[in-house]
Amino acid sequence: MSKYKEIAKSIEEKIMNGLYDDTGKLPTEDVLIKEYQSSRNTIRNAINHLMRLGLVVSIQGSGVFLRKGDSEGAINLENFHGLTTQFKNKSVTTKVISFELKKANAKLVSKLKCDPETLIYYIKRLRYVDGDPYVVEYTYYNSEVIPGITHEVATTSIFAYIRKVLKLEIGYVDMIISADILSAEDAVLLGLEDGMPSLKTENVEMLRNGKIFACSVDVHHYRRTKFLKLSNYI
Amino acid sequence: MSKYKEIAKSIEEKIMNGLYDDTGKLPTEDVLIKEYQSSRNTIRNAINHLMRLGLVVSIQGSGVFLRKGDSEGAINLENFHGLTTQFKNKSVTTKVISFELKKANAKLVSKLKCDPETLIYYIKRLRYVDGDPYVVEYTYYNSEVIPGITHEVATTSIFAYIRKVLKLEIGYVDMIISADILSAEDAVLLGLEDGMPSLKTENVEMLRNGKIFACSVDVHHYRRTKFLKLSNYI
Repeated sequence: MSKYKEIAKSIEEKIMNGLYDDTGKLPTEDVLIKEYQSSRNTIRNAINHLMRLGLVVSIQGSGVFLRKGDSEGAINLENFHGLTTQFKNKSVTTKVISFELKKANAKLVSKLKCDPETLIYYIKRLRYVDGDPYVVEYTYYNSEVIPGITHEVATTSIFAYIRKVLKLEIGYVDMIISADILSAEDAVLLGLEDGMPSLKTENVEMLRNGKIFACSVDVHHYRRTKFLKLSNYI
Repeated sequence: MSKYKEIAKSIEEKIMNGLYDDTGKLPTEDVLIKEYQSSRNTIRNAINHLMRLGLVVSIQGSGVFLRKGDSEGAINLENFHGLTTQFKNKSVTTKVISFELKKANAKLVSKLKCDPETLIYYIKRLRYVDGDPYVVEYTYYNSEVIPGITHEVATTSIFAYIRKVLKLEIGYVDMIISADILSAEDAVLLGLEDGMPSLKTENVEMLRNGKIFACSVDVHHYRRTKFLKLSNYI
Protein backbone atom coordinates (compact mmCIF):
# COMPACT_ATOMS: atom_id res chain seq x y z
CA MET A 1 0.00 0.00 0.00
CA SER A 2 1.35 3.44 -0.87
CA LYS A 3 2.30 5.83 1.94
CA TYR A 4 -0.63 8.21 1.34
CA LYS A 5 -3.14 5.33 1.39
CA GLU A 6 -1.67 4.11 4.70
CA ILE A 7 -2.11 7.57 6.17
CA ALA A 8 -5.63 7.82 4.74
CA LYS A 9 -6.46 4.45 6.33
CA SER A 10 -5.14 5.62 9.68
CA ILE A 11 -7.15 8.87 9.52
CA GLU A 12 -10.24 6.88 8.44
CA GLU A 13 -9.93 4.74 11.56
CA LYS A 14 -9.68 7.84 13.73
CA ILE A 15 -12.79 9.27 12.07
CA MET A 16 -14.67 6.02 12.68
CA ASN A 17 -13.55 5.99 16.31
CA GLY A 18 -14.99 9.48 16.78
CA LEU A 19 -11.64 11.14 17.44
CA TYR A 20 -12.61 14.27 15.51
CA ASP A 21 -16.28 14.41 16.55
CA ASP A 22 -15.70 17.37 18.88
CA THR A 23 -14.53 19.77 16.19
CA GLY A 24 -16.16 17.98 13.24
CA LYS A 25 -12.98 18.56 11.27
CA LEU A 26 -9.50 17.12 10.71
CA PRO A 27 -6.37 18.68 12.23
CA THR A 28 -4.61 21.20 9.95
CA GLU A 29 -2.20 20.07 7.26
CA ASP A 30 0.73 21.22 9.41
CA VAL A 31 -0.41 19.14 12.35
CA LEU A 32 -0.89 16.07 10.13
CA ILE A 33 2.55 16.56 8.54
CA LYS A 34 4.12 16.41 12.02
CA GLU A 35 1.90 13.58 13.23
CA TYR A 36 2.66 11.35 10.25
CA GLN A 37 6.19 12.67 9.58
CA SER A 38 5.30 13.06 5.93
CA SER A 39 5.54 15.65 3.19
CA ARG A 40 2.77 18.15 2.50
CA ASN A 41 2.19 16.41 -0.81
CA THR A 42 1.63 13.02 0.80
CA ILE A 43 -0.80 14.50 3.35
CA ARG A 44 -2.70 16.23 0.51
CA ASN A 45 -2.88 12.95 -1.43
CA ALA A 46 -4.21 11.23 1.70
CA ILE A 47 -6.87 13.93 2.15
CA ASN A 48 -7.84 13.74 -1.54
CA HIS A 49 -8.23 10.00 -1.12
CA LEU A 50 -10.52 10.51 1.90
CA MET A 51 -12.51 13.02 -0.20
CA ARG A 52 -12.97 10.43 -2.94
CA LEU A 53 -14.17 7.94 -0.35
CA GLY A 54 -16.74 10.54 0.70
CA LEU A 55 -15.44 10.73 4.26
CA VAL A 56 -14.46 14.42 4.30
CA VAL A 57 -15.03 17.63 2.37
CA SER A 58 -12.44 20.34 1.99
CA ILE A 59 -13.87 23.84 2.35
CA GLN A 60 -11.67 26.67 1.06
CA GLY A 61 -10.19 28.68 3.91
CA SER A 62 -12.03 26.72 6.62
CA GLY A 63 -10.50 23.27 6.75
CA VAL A 64 -11.34 19.66 6.06
CA PHE A 65 -14.70 18.68 7.54
CA LEU A 66 -16.14 15.27 8.33
CA ARG A 67 -18.91 14.32 5.92
CA LYS A 68 -21.52 12.32 7.71
CA GLY A 69 -24.94 12.81 6.16
CA ASP A 70 -27.96 10.64 6.85
CA SER A 71 -25.90 7.64 6.08
CA GLU A 72 -26.66 5.36 9.00
CA GLY A 73 -26.70 1.75 7.87
CA ALA A 74 -26.38 2.70 4.20
CA ILE A 75 -23.70 1.03 2.10
CA ASN A 76 -21.16 3.64 0.94
CA LEU A 77 -20.62 2.77 -2.73
CA GLU A 78 -17.17 4.40 -2.62
CA ASN A 79 -15.97 2.16 0.13
CA PHE A 80 -17.73 -1.21 -0.16
CA HIS A 81 -15.74 -4.37 0.37
CA GLY A 82 -18.48 -6.95 0.88
CA LEU A 83 -21.13 -7.43 3.55
CA THR A 84 -18.79 -9.01 6.11
CA THR A 85 -16.56 -5.92 6.09
CA GLN A 86 -19.51 -3.49 5.81
CA PHE A 87 -21.17 -4.81 8.95
CA LYS A 88 -18.16 -5.75 11.01
CA ASN A 89 -19.95 -4.73 14.21
CA LYS A 90 -22.96 -6.87 13.37
CA SER A 91 -23.41 -10.55 12.74
CA VAL A 92 -23.42 -11.45 9.02
CA THR A 93 -24.55 -15.03 8.40
CA THR A 94 -25.07 -16.92 5.19
CA LYS A 95 -27.33 -19.76 4.12
CA VAL A 96 -26.34 -21.53 0.91
CA ILE A 97 -29.58 -22.16 -1.01
CA SER A 98 -27.96 -23.94 -3.95
CA PHE A 99 -24.44 -24.76 -5.06
CA GLU A 100 -23.56 -26.32 -8.42
CA LEU A 101 -20.58 -26.62 -10.73
CA LYS A 102 -21.71 -26.79 -14.36
CA LYS A 103 -21.06 -25.40 -17.84
CA ALA A 104 -21.74 -21.73 -18.54
CA ASN A 105 -25.09 -20.96 -20.16
CA ALA A 106 -25.24 -18.52 -23.10
CA LYS A 107 -25.88 -15.50 -20.88
CA LEU A 108 -22.89 -16.31 -18.66
CA VAL A 109 -20.62 -16.94 -21.67
CA SER A 110 -21.40 -13.39 -22.72
CA LYS A 111 -21.15 -11.80 -19.24
CA LEU A 112 -18.02 -13.66 -18.13
CA LYS A 113 -16.48 -13.56 -21.62
CA CYS A 114 -15.61 -17.25 -21.26
CA ASP A 115 -15.69 -20.37 -23.42
CA PRO A 116 -19.02 -22.33 -23.40
CA GLU A 117 -17.13 -25.34 -22.02
CA THR A 118 -15.98 -23.42 -18.96
CA LEU A 119 -17.19 -24.79 -15.64
CA ILE A 120 -18.94 -22.18 -13.53
CA TYR A 121 -19.90 -22.24 -9.86
CA TYR A 122 -23.59 -21.37 -9.69
CA ILE A 123 -24.12 -20.22 -6.11
CA LYS A 124 -27.34 -18.92 -4.60
CA ARG A 125 -27.11 -17.59 -1.06
CA LEU A 126 -29.34 -15.84 1.42
CA ARG A 127 -27.43 -13.46 3.64
CA TYR A 128 -28.62 -12.19 7.00
CA VAL A 129 -27.53 -9.18 9.03
CA ASP A 130 -28.18 -9.62 12.75
CA GLY A 131 -30.52 -12.47 11.88
CA ASP A 132 -32.69 -10.50 9.42
CA PRO A 133 -32.76 -11.53 5.73
CA TYR A 134 -30.84 -8.83 3.86
CA VAL A 135 -30.04 -10.00 0.34
CA VAL A 136 -30.43 -12.99 -1.99
CA GLU A 137 -27.24 -13.32 -4.03
CA TYR A 138 -27.00 -15.19 -7.32
CA THR A 139 -23.28 -15.42 -8.04
CA TYR A 140 -21.47 -17.10 -10.93
CA TYR A 141 -17.74 -17.69 -10.54
CA ASN A 142 -15.49 -18.82 -13.37
CA SER A 143 -13.87 -21.93 -11.83
CA GLU A 144 -10.79 -21.53 -14.02
CA VAL A 145 -10.07 -18.16 -12.41
CA ILE A 146 -11.45 -18.84 -8.92
CA PRO A 147 -10.88 -22.55 -8.30
CA GLY A 148 -11.73 -24.59 -5.25
CA ILE A 149 -14.86 -22.90 -3.90
CA THR A 150 -16.58 -25.40 -1.63
CA HIS A 151 -19.99 -25.39 0.00
CA GLU A 152 -18.19 -24.50 3.21
CA VAL A 153 -16.34 -21.53 1.67
CA ALA A 154 -19.70 -20.31 0.33
CA THR A 155 -21.13 -20.14 3.85
CA THR A 156 -18.59 -17.41 4.69
CA SER A 157 -17.08 -14.48 2.75
CA ILE A 158 -16.07 -15.63 -0.75
CA PHE A 159 -14.26 -12.28 -1.22
CA ALA A 160 -12.09 -13.11 1.79
CA TYR A 161 -11.36 -16.55 0.25
CA ILE A 162 -10.30 -14.88 -3.01
CA ARG A 163 -8.03 -12.44 -1.25
CA LYS A 164 -6.64 -14.46 1.61
CA VAL A 165 -6.53 -18.03 0.29
CA LEU A 166 -6.11 -17.56 -3.46
CA LYS A 167 -4.06 -14.34 -2.96
CA LEU A 168 -5.82 -12.70 -5.93
CA GLU A 169 -6.44 -8.98 -6.10
CA ILE A 170 -9.91 -7.68 -6.92
CA GLY A 171 -9.51 -4.79 -9.34
CA TYR A 172 -12.81 -3.48 -10.66
CA VAL A 173 -16.51 -3.98 -10.15
CA ASP A 174 -19.15 -2.69 -12.59
CA MET A 175 -22.50 -2.43 -10.82
CA ILE A 176 -25.90 -1.56 -12.26
CA ILE A 177 -28.44 -0.54 -9.64
CA SER A 178 -32.17 -0.76 -10.32
CA ALA A 179 -35.51 -1.39 -8.65
CA ASP A 180 -37.60 -4.38 -9.62
CA ILE A 181 -40.49 -6.54 -8.46
CA LEU A 182 -39.54 -9.50 -6.26
CA SER A 183 -39.98 -13.00 -7.65
CA ALA A 184 -42.24 -15.23 -5.56
CA GLU A 185 -39.25 -17.30 -4.50
CA ASP A 186 -37.08 -14.35 -3.42
CA ALA A 187 -40.05 -12.82 -1.57
CA VAL A 188 -40.32 -15.96 0.57
CA LEU A 189 -36.58 -15.94 1.28
CA LEU A 190 -36.58 -12.26 2.28
CA GLY A 191 -39.77 -12.60 4.33
CA LEU A 192 -41.67 -10.12 2.14
CA GLU A 193 -44.99 -10.37 0.38
CA ASP A 194 -45.17 -11.38 -3.24
CA GLY A 195 -45.03 -8.39 -5.62
CA MET A 196 -43.08 -6.12 -3.25
CA PRO A 197 -40.11 -4.11 -4.63
CA SER A 198 -36.48 -5.16 -4.57
CA LEU A 199 -33.34 -3.05 -4.79
CA LYS A 200 -31.31 -4.97 -7.32
CA THR A 201 -27.66 -4.82 -8.36
CA GLU A 202 -26.13 -6.60 -11.34
CA ASN A 203 -22.38 -6.87 -11.03
CA VAL A 204 -19.41 -7.83 -13.15
CA GLU A 205 -16.23 -8.40 -11.17
CA MET A 206 -12.67 -8.20 -12.49
CA LEU A 207 -9.23 -8.96 -11.11
CA ARG A 208 -6.49 -6.38 -11.19
CA ASN A 209 -5.25 -7.86 -14.49
CA GLY A 210 -8.65 -7.18 -16.09
CA LYS A 211 -9.81 -10.82 -16.13
CA ILE A 212 -13.52 -11.18 -15.34
CA PHE A 213 -13.83 -13.69 -12.50
CA ALA A 214 -17.51 -13.44 -11.59
CA CYS A 215 -20.85 -11.85 -12.25
CA SER A 216 -23.79 -11.67 -9.91
CA VAL A 217 -27.30 -10.45 -9.30
CA ASP A 218 -28.03 -9.28 -5.75
CA VAL A 219 -31.67 -8.94 -4.75
CA HIS A 220 -31.86 -6.71 -1.67
CA HIS A 221 -34.60 -6.33 0.93
CA TYR A 222 -35.95 -2.92 -0.09
CA ARG A 223 -36.55 -1.69 3.43
CA ARG A 224 -33.16 -2.82 4.77
CA THR A 225 -30.64 -1.91 2.07
CA LYS A 226 -29.81 1.62 1.02
CA PHE A 227 -26.81 2.78 -0.97
CA LEU A 228 -24.95 5.99 -0.27
CA LYS A 229 -23.23 7.85 -3.13
CA LEU A 230 -21.11 10.81 -2.14
CA SER A 231 -20.16 12.91 -5.16
CA ASN A 232 -17.51 15.58 -5.45
CA TYR A 233 -17.78 18.05 -8.28
CA ILE A 234 -14.57 19.79 -7.31
CA MET B 1 -9.99 23.93 -15.12
CA SER B 2 -6.60 22.34 -14.45
CA LYS B 3 -4.53 21.11 -17.39
CA TYR B 4 -5.00 17.40 -16.60
CA LYS B 5 -8.78 17.82 -16.37
CA GLU B 6 -8.82 19.57 -19.76
CA ILE B 7 -6.90 16.68 -21.28
CA ALA B 8 -9.18 14.15 -19.56
CA LYS B 9 -12.21 16.01 -20.98
CA SER B 10 -10.71 15.92 -24.47
CA ILE B 11 -9.95 12.18 -24.23
CA GLU B 12 -13.47 11.60 -22.84
CA GLU B 13 -14.95 13.25 -25.94
CA LYS B 14 -12.83 11.06 -28.19
CA ILE B 15 -13.98 7.95 -26.31
CA MET B 16 -17.61 9.06 -26.69
CA ASN B 17 -17.10 9.69 -30.40
CA GLY B 18 -15.82 6.14 -30.83
CA LEU B 19 -12.30 7.17 -31.79
CA TYR B 20 -10.75 4.30 -29.87
CA ASP B 21 -13.39 1.67 -30.62
CA ASP B 22 -11.13 -0.20 -33.08
CA THR B 23 -8.45 -1.05 -30.54
CA GLY B 24 -10.63 -0.75 -27.44
CA LYS B 25 -7.77 1.07 -25.74
CA LEU B 26 -6.16 4.50 -25.42
CA PRO B 27 -2.93 5.41 -27.24
CA THR B 28 0.23 4.83 -25.18
CA GLU B 29 1.44 7.41 -22.67
CA ASP B 30 4.21 8.45 -25.07
CA VAL B 31 1.72 9.11 -27.87
CA LEU B 32 -0.54 11.12 -25.54
CA ILE B 33 2.44 13.15 -24.27
CA LYS B 34 3.21 14.19 -27.84
CA GLU B 35 -0.43 14.72 -28.79
CA TYR B 36 -1.16 16.99 -25.82
CA GLN B 37 2.34 18.42 -25.49
CA SER B 38 2.28 17.68 -21.78
CA SER B 39 4.42 16.04 -19.15
CA ARG B 40 4.12 12.37 -18.29
CA ASN B 41 2.80 13.38 -14.89
CA THR B 42 -0.03 15.43 -16.38
CA ILE B 43 -1.01 12.59 -18.74
CA ARG B 44 -0.99 10.15 -15.82
CA ASN B 45 -3.20 12.49 -13.79
CA ALA B 46 -5.59 12.73 -16.74
CA ILE B 47 -5.74 8.94 -17.05
CA ASN B 48 -6.26 8.54 -13.28
CA HIS B 49 -9.14 11.01 -13.56
CA LEU B 50 -10.68 8.96 -16.40
CA MET B 51 -10.29 5.85 -14.22
CA ARG B 52 -12.16 7.55 -11.38
CA LEU B 53 -14.94 8.46 -13.80
CA GLY B 54 -15.12 4.77 -14.70
CA LEU B 55 -14.31 5.37 -18.37
CA VAL B 56 -11.11 3.36 -18.57
CA VAL B 57 -9.21 0.67 -16.69
CA SER B 58 -5.46 0.43 -16.58
CA ILE B 59 -4.15 -3.12 -16.92
CA GLN B 60 -0.51 -3.69 -15.88
CA GLY B 61 1.71 -4.25 -18.89
CA SER B 62 -1.16 -4.14 -21.41
CA GLY B 63 -2.39 -0.56 -21.56
CA VAL B 64 -5.41 1.55 -20.71
CA PHE B 65 -8.64 -0.07 -21.88
CA LEU B 66 -12.07 1.43 -22.48
CA ARG B 67 -14.55 0.35 -19.84
CA LYS B 68 -17.96 0.02 -21.37
CA GLY B 69 -19.98 -2.64 -19.62
CA ASP B 70 -23.72 -3.11 -20.01
CA SER B 71 -24.20 0.56 -19.34
CA GLU B 72 -26.54 1.63 -22.10
CA GLY B 73 -28.90 4.31 -20.88
CA ALA B 74 -27.75 3.92 -17.28
CA ILE B 75 -26.76 7.01 -15.32
CA ASN B 76 -23.06 6.84 -14.43
CA LEU B 77 -22.98 7.98 -10.79
CA GLU B 78 -19.36 9.09 -11.19
CA ASN B 79 -20.19 11.51 -13.96
CA PHE B 80 -23.75 12.77 -13.44
CA HIS B 81 -24.46 16.45 -14.02
CA GLY B 82 -28.25 16.50 -14.25
CA LEU B 83 -30.71 14.97 -16.71
CA THR B 84 -30.24 17.62 -19.40
CA THR B 85 -26.52 16.87 -19.61
CA GLN B 86 -27.01 13.11 -19.18
CA PHE B 87 -29.35 12.85 -22.16
CA LYS B 88 -27.92 15.51 -24.42
CA ASN B 89 -28.75 13.47 -27.52
CA LYS B 90 -32.36 13.02 -26.38
CA SER B 91 -35.15 15.43 -25.62
CA VAL B 92 -35.51 16.21 -21.89
CA THR B 93 -38.71 18.09 -21.09
CA THR B 94 -40.13 19.20 -17.78
CA LYS B 95 -43.63 19.80 -16.46
CA VAL B 96 -43.87 21.85 -13.29
CA ILE B 97 -46.53 20.18 -11.14
CA SER B 98 -46.35 22.68 -8.29
CA PHE B 99 -44.24 25.68 -7.39
CA GLU B 100 -44.40 27.52 -4.06
CA LEU B 101 -42.24 29.83 -1.97
CA LYS B 102 -42.91 29.30 1.73
CA LYS B 103 -41.27 28.82 5.10
CA ALA B 104 -39.23 25.68 5.76
CA ASN B 105 -41.03 22.89 7.59
CA ALA B 106 -39.30 21.08 10.43
CA LYS B 107 -37.88 18.36 8.19
CA LEU B 108 -36.38 20.92 5.80
CA VAL B 109 -34.93 22.99 8.65
CA SER B 110 -33.03 19.88 9.65
CA LYS B 111 -32.02 18.78 6.12
CA LEU B 112 -31.07 22.25 4.85
CA LYS B 113 -29.60 23.32 8.21
CA CYS B 114 -31.50 26.62 7.89
CA ASP B 115 -33.51 28.90 10.16
CA PRO B 116 -37.27 28.10 10.45
CA GLU B 117 -38.03 31.54 9.02
CA THR B 118 -36.10 30.84 5.80
CA LEU B 119 -38.17 30.91 2.63
CA ILE B 120 -37.84 27.76 0.57
CA TYR B 121 -38.86 27.05 -3.01
CA TYR B 122 -40.98 23.89 -2.94
CA ILE B 123 -40.86 22.60 -6.50
CA LYS B 124 -42.43 19.42 -7.80
CA ARG B 125 -41.62 18.51 -11.39
CA LEU B 126 -42.26 15.63 -13.75
CA ARG B 127 -39.40 15.11 -16.19
CA TYR B 128 -39.67 13.28 -19.47
CA VAL B 129 -36.96 11.75 -21.65
CA ASP B 130 -38.00 11.53 -25.30
CA GLY B 131 -41.59 12.07 -24.21
CA ASP B 132 -41.67 9.22 -21.66
CA PRO B 133 -42.14 10.03 -17.94
CA TYR B 134 -38.78 9.40 -16.31
CA VAL B 135 -38.74 10.91 -12.81
CA VAL B 136 -40.88 12.89 -10.36
CA GLU B 137 -38.62 15.36 -8.55
CA TYR B 138 -39.48 16.98 -5.23
CA THR B 139 -36.86 19.70 -4.77
CA TYR B 140 -36.45 22.23 -1.97
CA TYR B 141 -34.14 25.20 -2.62
CA ASN B 142 -33.04 27.63 0.07
CA SER B 143 -34.08 30.97 -1.49
CA GLU B 144 -31.39 32.82 0.46
CA VAL B 145 -28.71 30.76 -1.29
CA ILE B 146 -30.43 30.23 -4.66
CA PRO B 147 -32.57 33.34 -5.22
CA GLY B 148 -34.79 34.17 -8.15
CA ILE B 149 -36.04 30.78 -9.30
CA THR B 150 -39.17 31.38 -11.37
CA HIS B 151 -41.76 29.00 -12.75
CA GLU B 152 -40.06 29.49 -16.10
CA VAL B 153 -36.60 28.60 -14.77
CA ALA B 154 -38.14 25.47 -13.23
CA THR B 155 -39.32 24.27 -16.64
CA THR B 156 -35.68 23.96 -17.74
CA SER B 157 -32.45 22.89 -16.01
CA ILE B 158 -32.22 24.52 -12.56
CA PHE B 159 -28.61 23.29 -12.32
CA ALA B 160 -27.80 25.29 -15.46
CA TYR B 161 -29.47 28.36 -13.87
CA ILE B 162 -27.33 27.94 -10.75
CA ARG B 163 -24.12 27.61 -12.74
CA LYS B 164 -24.68 29.97 -15.64
CA VAL B 165 -26.92 32.71 -14.22
CA LEU B 166 -26.03 32.75 -10.52
CA LYS B 167 -22.41 31.74 -11.25
CA LEU B 168 -22.35 29.44 -8.24
CA GLU B 169 -20.30 26.29 -8.12
CA ILE B 170 -21.89 23.02 -7.09
CA GLY B 171 -19.47 21.23 -4.80
CA TYR B 172 -20.89 18.08 -3.26
CA VAL B 173 -23.98 15.92 -3.49
CA ASP B 174 -24.88 13.25 -0.90
CA MET B 175 -27.28 10.74 -2.42
CA ILE B 176 -29.08 7.84 -0.77
CA ILE B 177 -30.45 5.29 -3.23
CA SER B 178 -33.28 2.96 -2.28
CA ALA B 179 -36.27 1.11 -3.68
CA ASP B 180 -39.76 1.93 -2.48
CA ILE B 181 -43.43 1.52 -3.36
CA LEU B 182 -44.90 4.29 -5.54
CA SER B 183 -47.49 6.59 -4.03
CA ALA B 184 -50.82 6.64 -5.89
CA GLU B 185 -50.09 10.17 -7.11
CA ASP B 186 -46.58 9.43 -8.42
CA ALA B 187 -47.86 6.24 -10.08
CA VAL B 188 -50.32 8.32 -12.11
CA LEU B 189 -47.60 10.81 -13.08
CA LEU B 190 -45.20 8.08 -14.19
CA GLY B 191 -47.92 6.11 -16.00
CA LEU B 192 -47.47 3.08 -13.75
CA GLU B 193 -49.92 1.03 -11.74
CA ASP B 194 -50.49 1.75 -8.11
CA GLY B 195 -48.21 -0.28 -5.83
CA MET B 196 -45.42 -0.70 -8.39
CA PRO B 197 -41.79 -0.12 -7.29
CA SER B 198 -39.83 3.11 -7.58
CA LEU B 199 -36.10 3.69 -7.64
CA LYS B 200 -35.71 6.55 -5.20
CA THR B 201 -32.86 8.94 -4.43
CA GLU B 202 -32.72 11.35 -1.51
CA ASN B 203 -30.18 14.08 -2.10
CA VAL B 204 -28.50 16.87 -0.16
CA GLU B 205 -26.69 19.37 -2.36
CA MET B 206 -23.86 21.68 -1.32
CA LEU B 207 -21.95 24.52 -2.93
CA ARG B 208 -18.19 24.51 -3.12
CA ASN B 209 -18.06 26.53 0.10
CA GLY B 210 -19.94 23.76 1.93
CA LYS B 211 -23.26 25.64 2.17
CA ILE B 212 -26.29 23.38 1.68
CA PHE B 213 -28.43 24.93 -1.06
CA ALA B 214 -31.03 22.24 -1.71
CA CYS B 215 -32.35 18.84 -0.86
CA SER B 216 -34.55 16.65 -2.98
CA VAL B 217 -36.34 13.35 -3.37
CA ASP B 218 -36.35 11.90 -6.89
CA VAL B 219 -38.85 9.15 -7.63
CA HIS B 220 -37.70 7.31 -10.75
CA HIS B 221 -39.64 5.10 -13.16
CA TYR B 222 -38.25 1.70 -12.16
CA ARG B 223 -38.11 0.30 -15.67
CA ARG B 224 -36.48 3.40 -17.21
CA THR B 225 -33.84 4.49 -14.70
CA LYS B 226 -30.76 2.48 -13.83
CA PHE B 227 -27.63 3.71 -12.08
CA LEU B 228 -24.16 2.59 -13.01
CA LYS B 229 -21.44 2.46 -10.35
CA LEU B 230 -17.94 1.69 -11.57
CA SER B 231 -15.61 0.88 -8.68
CA ASN B 232 -11.84 0.71 -8.68
CA TYR B 233 -10.17 -1.19 -5.90
CA ILE B 234 -6.69 -0.37 -7.15
